[in-house]
Amino acid sequence: MNKPIYYEQYQIGDTRSAYGRTITEADIVLHAGQTGDFYPHHMDAEWCKTQEFQRRIAHGTLIFSVGIGMTAGDINPVAFSYGYDRLRFIKPVFIGDTIYAKVTIKEKRDHPKRTNSGFVVELVEVINQHDELVLVCEHLLLTEKQSV
Amino acid sequence: MNKPIYYEQYQIGDTRSAYGRTITEADIVLHAGQTGDFYPHHMDAEWCKTQEFQRRIAHGTLIFSVGIGMTAGDINPVAFSYGYDRLRFIKPVFIGDTIYAKVTIKEKRDHPKRTNSGFVVELVEVINQHDELVLVCEHLLLTEKQSV
Amino acid sequence: MNKPIYYEQYQIGDTRSAYGRTITEADIVLHAGQTGDFYPHHMDAEWCKTQEFQRRIAHGTLIFSVGIGMTAGDINPVAFSYGYDRLRFIKPVFIGDTIYAKVTIKEKRDHPKRTNSGFVVELVEVINQHDELVLVCEHLLLTEKQSV
Amino acid sequence: MNKPIYYEQYQIGDTRSAYGRTITEADIVLHAGQTGDFYPHHMDAEWCKTQEFQRRIAHGTLIFSVGIGMTAGDINPVAFSYGYDRLRFIKPVFIGDTIYAKVTIKEKRDHPKRTNSGFVVELVEVINQHDELVLVCEHLLLTEKQSV
Amino acid sequence: MNKPIYYEQYQIGDTRSAYGRTITEADIVLHAGQTGDFYPHHMDAEWCKTQEFQRRIAHGTLIFSVGIGMTAGDINPVAFSYGYDRLRFIKPVFIGDTIYAKVTIKEKRDHPKRTNSGFVVELVEVINQHDELVLVCEHLLLTEKQSV
Amino acid sequence: MNKPIYYEQYQIGDTRSAYGRTITEADIVLHAGQTGDFYPHHMDAEWCKTQEFQRRIAHGTLIFSVGIGMTAGDINPVAFSYGYDRLRFIKPVFIGDTIYAKVTIKEKRDHPKRTNSGFVVELVEVINQHDELVLVCEHLLLTEKQSV
Repeated sequence: MNKPIYYEQYQIGDTRSAYGRTITEADIVLHAGQTGDFYPHHMDAEWCKTQEFQRRIAHGTLIFSVGIGMTAGDINPVAFSYGYDRLRFIKPVFIGDTIYAKVTIKEKRDHPKRTNSGFVVELVEVINQHDELVLVCEHLLLTEKQSV
Repeated sequence: MNKPIYYEQYQIGDTRSAYGRTITEADIVLHAGQTGDFYPHHMDAEWCKTQEFQRRIAHGTLIFSVGIGMTAGDINPVAFSYGYDRLRFIKPVFIGDTIYAKVTIKEKRDHPKRTNSGFVVELVEVINQHDELVLVCEHLLLTEKQSV
Repeated sequence: MNKPIYYEQYQIGDTRSAYGRTITEADIVLHAGQTGDFYPHHMDAEWCKTQEFQRRIAHGTLIFSVGIGMTAGDINPVAFSYGYDRLRFIKPVFIGDTIYAKVTIKEKRDHPKRTNSGFVVELVEVINQHDELVLVCEHLLLTEKQSV
Repeated sequence: MNKPIYYEQYQIGDTRSAYGRTITEADIVLHAGQTGDFYPHHMDAEWCKTQEFQRRIAHGTLIFSVGIGMTAGDINPVAFSYGYDRLRFIKPVFIGDTIYAKVTIKEKRDHPKRTNSGFVVELVEVINQHDELVLVCEHLLLTEKQSV
Repeated sequence: MNKPIYYEQYQIGDTRSAYGRTITEADIVLHAGQTGDFYPHHMDAEWCKTQEFQRRIAHGTLIFSVGIGMTAGDINPVAFSYGYDRLRFIKPVFIGDTIYAKVTIKEKRDHPKRTNSGFVVELVEVINQHDELVLVCEHLLLTEKQSV
Repeated sequence: MNKPIYYEQYQIGDTRSAYGRTITEADIVLHAGQTGDFYPHHMDAEWCKTQEFQRRIAHGTLIFSVGIGMTAGDINPVAFSYGYDRLRFIKPVFIGDTIYAKVTIKEKRDHPKRTNSGFVVELVEVINQHDELVLVCEHLLLTEKQSV
């Protein structure tokens, strides 16, 4: 389960995807409970009827957390998650929508200081059942170089 | 509870903070359950003993989601959350650590195309009980201009 | 966030309210799980069809707990929650109903023995989306007097 | 499971009790998540160290909800829960405390208007593992009379 | 609550049943979260539309766990749960189905080695609201003999 | 992710294993909440002190559900889960124990009636951090034959 993949082995353009997941009312209730974000956008169906989308929408942090969780594959013991760039909430996700996550190796970047590792930039795209992009971000995977 | 704050009213350097929150084993179990990320870094205390930090660590998406949730204040009906930049996991958060979130208005930026709104950039810093920075990111708040 | 409000400062007739919250099937499932109350009134949709309301109803303790949670505001470091009087379940709350909580300072009462504090009686009213009162109670806030 | 017990059959002084239950950190986390009450008294172990009890305390509504849930027995189809009086939080409950609930038929009271039913007043006492009373309240059970 | 029932006292053919329980979307989400089983059969409503049953189905381990939980009665201090035989998933359970559990004493069997106890075999049947058998198993209760 | 594996392709003796998982107090609380099994063996730390193991033990259905969930791999579209045989609870699992699941193809058996499929019998073994077997069962996978 734990096979090292070194910086040199990542191929730009490679993709991986995962099973889909329907976002339920229960997911939103649980995420409010975990984060303490009980904003009416997520929790008050009556108030939402008076707003643009007319329905409760999932928390951005929920779709991000689930999207990232969905893409988790095998452990790479020579890499670790450094952070995320350009996280954008493109479209709202509603109760009953089903989301899919796709990861594409977008770029490889040397580390500014360390010569023995580099950044593998994974483009994470989350789409809904209508093939609409709902969330996008770039995952920075700090990865050891094999050659060093 | 819903008072409009326009782009012009945000003052660079203004800060707000929130009550602290102790990250519990239950939080990690619930976050694994919500996201499907059951990596041994979070779930297997025995395996963790063999690793650098020797203890289970909280998911990055958990600390991000809770940190953002902690900073939620009143609703600003003339702004919405556009996304996050430069999200970085600086230090691990362990079971029993207490985290605090602080938001600082860092920058204001015109929207490249729309003249009637601009980006308010909030620097979100999450620190632990030892005053160590554990997570940082920039929140982009797309905010209407009053003058238009 | 922690500003002392002394007994003398509470004004009878003052009110505060909060965002609404839609009571979901997930809330009922979670409340049954927390309390161990799996009565068919809350958990068995088929049995409920044979009863007066024909639908599952939320636990009274759920509506009370959420209603009280909704009214939580800033911390008053010179007051603490002494208890509740006259808690009444006026109407059932069904899955999908949205509830709102309103707090009114109803009465101020000297403590029978302590001269340095008194009871601030908050009337807590929970209404549904049809403006029907579903739950009512009186919260006793034991509050320090400033003058002493 | 559903045996009618009429007003006349309740005997003042009769008691029933239930299995104990240890209040866990997970219970508090789940209750905060259900109610939205993330006050530092329950959630911030560091802040609690600076307070009187030095430890996180369970929400009053948690102990009430669990205590009531623990005493749920068979369904009485000729009675329903009318409300609660004199709910008092006598002592704090800490993580790891074990609570026990005991119900005593305390009083029977005619309904002021309806002649065909009356109030059975159940005294609910919740004690901890040191036999200290932590919560007390009176449950009003509106019960049909058989004789009518 | 804890009355010993010895091997000799169990009567073949005796039955007990329990309140019903509606299986909700929240139950499936919580069970996925507890077990880590996020298979699309349970979690992806879109994928399920392309499959035989066209709807999400509850995890087998969820129906088993809830079915067993529903039949828990008083504690028998002279018996313990040894295991289960012939657990079969006869029909799928869908969101909104209501299940009922029935236990029948099916057989009594001497323990091959211990003379002071024997196996009481409980047939556990879980049916849905259409009286269809959805799950069946045999529970082995290792029970002390009184005569020894 | 969905690669058909036919009956003929399963090799007796093949094994697969999975990441470990520490069983937490939160898991037990959540399982009690899902199943309604609040027996003091799992929930009352004080009562447990007076019993043989002196500590709370995990529900058998929890260890079974998690153990099965841990072994979930890719979907085999030509097989489905028929049931389980000989499920045995060998040793108790305590809070803080870490469990590991191992699956071994133990046997292949023709279906008594259907010629186009057969049973692949998977031996599921769950061990703890002391390499002690805590749970064992046989999983019956009804699998299509390719040759037909």
